[in-house]
Amino acid sequence: MDIEDTLLMIPGPVKVAPRVLRALSKPMISHRSGDFSVIYSDCCKLLKQFFETKNEIVVMTGSGTVGMDAAVAGLIGHDDKIVTISNGKFGERFTEIGERYGKAIPVKFEWGTPFDLDRVEAALEGGAKAVAMVHNETSVGLTNPAKEVGKLARKHDAVFIVDGISSIGGNEFFTDEWGIDIAITGSQKALAVPPGLAVVSTSPRAEERFLPKSASYYSDLKAHLKSVRKSQPQTPFTPAVSLFFAMQESLHMAAEEGFALRRARTAKQAQSVRSAAKALGIELFPQVNEHTHYSNTVTAMKMPEGVTDDKLRGGMKKQGVIVSGGQDLIKGKIFRIGTMGMCSSSDILRTIQTLELILVKEGKIASCGAGVEAASTVLES
Amino acid sequence: MDIEDTLLMIPGPVKVAPRVLRALSKPMISHRSGDFSVIYSDCCKLLKQFFETKNEIVVMTGSGTVGMDAAVAGLIGHDDKIVTISNGKFGERFTEIGERYGKAIPVKFEWGTPFDLDRVEAALEGGAKAVAMVHNETSVGLTNPAKEVGKLARKHDAVFIVDGISSIGGNEFFTDEWGIDIAITGSQKALAVPPGLAVVSTSPRAEERFLPKSASYYSDLKAHLKSVRKSQPQTPFTPAVSLFFAMQESLHMAAEEGFALRRARTAKQAQSVRSAAKALGIELFPQVNEHTHYSNTVTAMKMPEGVTDDKLRGGMKKQGVIVSGGQDLIKGKIFRIGTMGMCSSSDILRTIQTLELILVKEGKIASCGAGVEAASTVLES
Repeated sequence: MDIEDTLLMIPGPVKVAPRVLRALSKPMISHRSGDFSVIYSDCCKLLKQFFETKNEIVVMTGSGTVGMDAAVAGLIGHDDKIVTISNGKFGERFTEIGERYGKAIPVKFEWGTPFDLDRVEAALEGGAKAVAMVHNETSVGLTNPAKEVGKLARKHDAVFIVDGISSIGGNEFFTDEWGIDIAITGSQKALAVPPGLAVVSTSPRAEERFLPKSASYYSDLKAHLKSVRKSQPQTPFTPAVSLFFAMQESLHMAAEEGFALRRARTAKQAQSVRSAAKALGIELFPQVNEHTHYSNTVTAMKMPEGVTDDKLRGGMKKQGVIVSGGQDLIKGKIFRIGTMGMCSSSDILRTIQTLELILVKEGKIASCGAGVEAASTVLES
Repeated sequence: MDIEDTLLMIPGPVKVAPRVLRALSKPMISHRSGDFSVIYSDCCKLLKQFFETKNEIVVMTGSGTVGMDAAVAGLIGHDDKIVTISNGKFGERFTEIGERYGKAIPVKFEWGTPFDLDRVEAALEGGAKAVAMVHNETSVGLTNPAKEVGKLARKHDAVFIVDGISSIGGNEFFTDEWGIDIAITGSQKALAVPPGLAVVSTSPRAEERFLPKSASYYSDLKAHLKSVRKSQPQTPFTPAVSLFFAMQESLHMAAEEGFALRRARTAKQAQSVRSAAKALGIELFPQVNEHTHYSNTVTAMKMPEGVTDDKLRGGMKKQGVIVSGGQDLIKGKIFRIGTMGMCSSSDILRTIQTLELILVKEGKIASCGAGVEAASTVLES
């Protein structure tokens, strides 16, 4: 199998449009040139729309984690407390980061279950400089209540940090309306750019509370903010110039489609996957309630009983369709389909059709077609 | 002017070969796939030759600075001392990083002047966990004595950290022979890949002395070493997959040319630039001695008297040739020409010819040709 000739349906890195790949491969320019500054400015302007914010935006070279790291290292000194809410792998990463720099107060829920907001508030009542959460928990396919936690953060005067890595641009995400002081995304999710850039928005309220010096030299948000505010915006360290070319092109594609329309399309696509799952008798993994929703960017489904990860994902891979498995403690128990960025209706239908063939082979369904029909009905609605 | 249709002669990011740009723009793959592991393994194998080392290699997503940060954050706790030697901008960066995590003992020399090894030894006699230096000081065009400092580091039992960012693969650089415990390079220098990856080699001796936990979450060398040693090598956080495609291709190109032959070609190219400078009455900026040499990857020259940066570099830019200026305290006082990676003889001749036209215009030389002839003589020798 040609590794390039496959359909990538994982929740990031996602498929990159040919237009964006062409921009990626433009000849190199100096990162200290006016030309680079123009590209960086243009990206920031469009990213503000993507984030639904008026806050300052910076782009850091690194994975999304460098943005999470920058937020915590910039605010949390050795004796500072940060409440870290988790119901999956990436929420737990905030706890690890918090512990690295200061005192993490973890509010931990079972993977894939909704936050209990009373427990979050109880933790904040103990006093904390910040509270951090993941909006879209990629590992379990849940969208967590950022708006509600934002209200609690304001009430208890804590800086509100949200990992929006697999969310912003895919799910509804309103940075300013929800009072998010630091919001983070990564280039390889709804931005539909290859991985290697983290985007971070910072409110004046967060900036006022920054430590005099970030606990990290490389992930120094203050240094990035200083550089972006120069008359010709720059980055403090050499940026991944090619990925900026790609991001600029991808943001223009999103603007052409319309940021709100892109989100609405993504929502419909995830709904079509959920509808297909139902038609095929596959259970969704996460639990939802009135303020916790199935994710629109990644659908996590329970592995059908008696079917192994190798049979399901391995079988789909043989047909050229790549979907994700479960991570860490739910490895082998779930599989996940990403719907972000440039994912098309035909990508989804091919994925569901391939899944159906495996399910027939494994004796889980009698014949193909019901999933494709259910998905198609939603996509055409 | 089309910003893409220019000759980039700066000391990084450097020109990227079309073959490498095509690899860069391959469709995305999962970073957790066996396919990615194969690419990462192949890169590490070739990078060991590039570094002249048997030590473990990891590739981190970020600028070269993330590698410097990882080395210091992994070793230097709050009460640990690190001797940081500097004679230019990037040496001073090690002092800043050392101060962020522990106690930096700066041994500072005037920009562009050789180290006084007695002063380095005196600092080490005070006791230090590590000593850090820049091998090729990009800001001033000097190659510093890594071998000699390595001996002092061993004698005083300090971990030896060397920024080889604009050096490795261009200058002679012998990681193991010189006793370099942690060596660092960036993708955008002699590797001739776009910026966004840092490569770090770590000796067992350095690993034994790592802090229980790195002071940085993102720049965590221990986490990277753990991931690369899995049966299928990985990175702890999402890597810049496209840049790995490019790096693999570029390393294959270097292997085809031969790593030692590549260095010899680079040396001859820098010599040709120095020879042209001499023929044109342009003084080299740095001072050299028996163990400190003119750099083979970047030639720093004094701005001819009465010629402004705008006239010289601005004038060359109008002709489509981009060279670098001085940074910080020597801004406007020097200009720099990079010779690394895929730089060709014709690139150098076009650059010198363009420089000559400016010098004629500014009344510094009577006619064109002497610089081109001098460079050509060296290139054809």
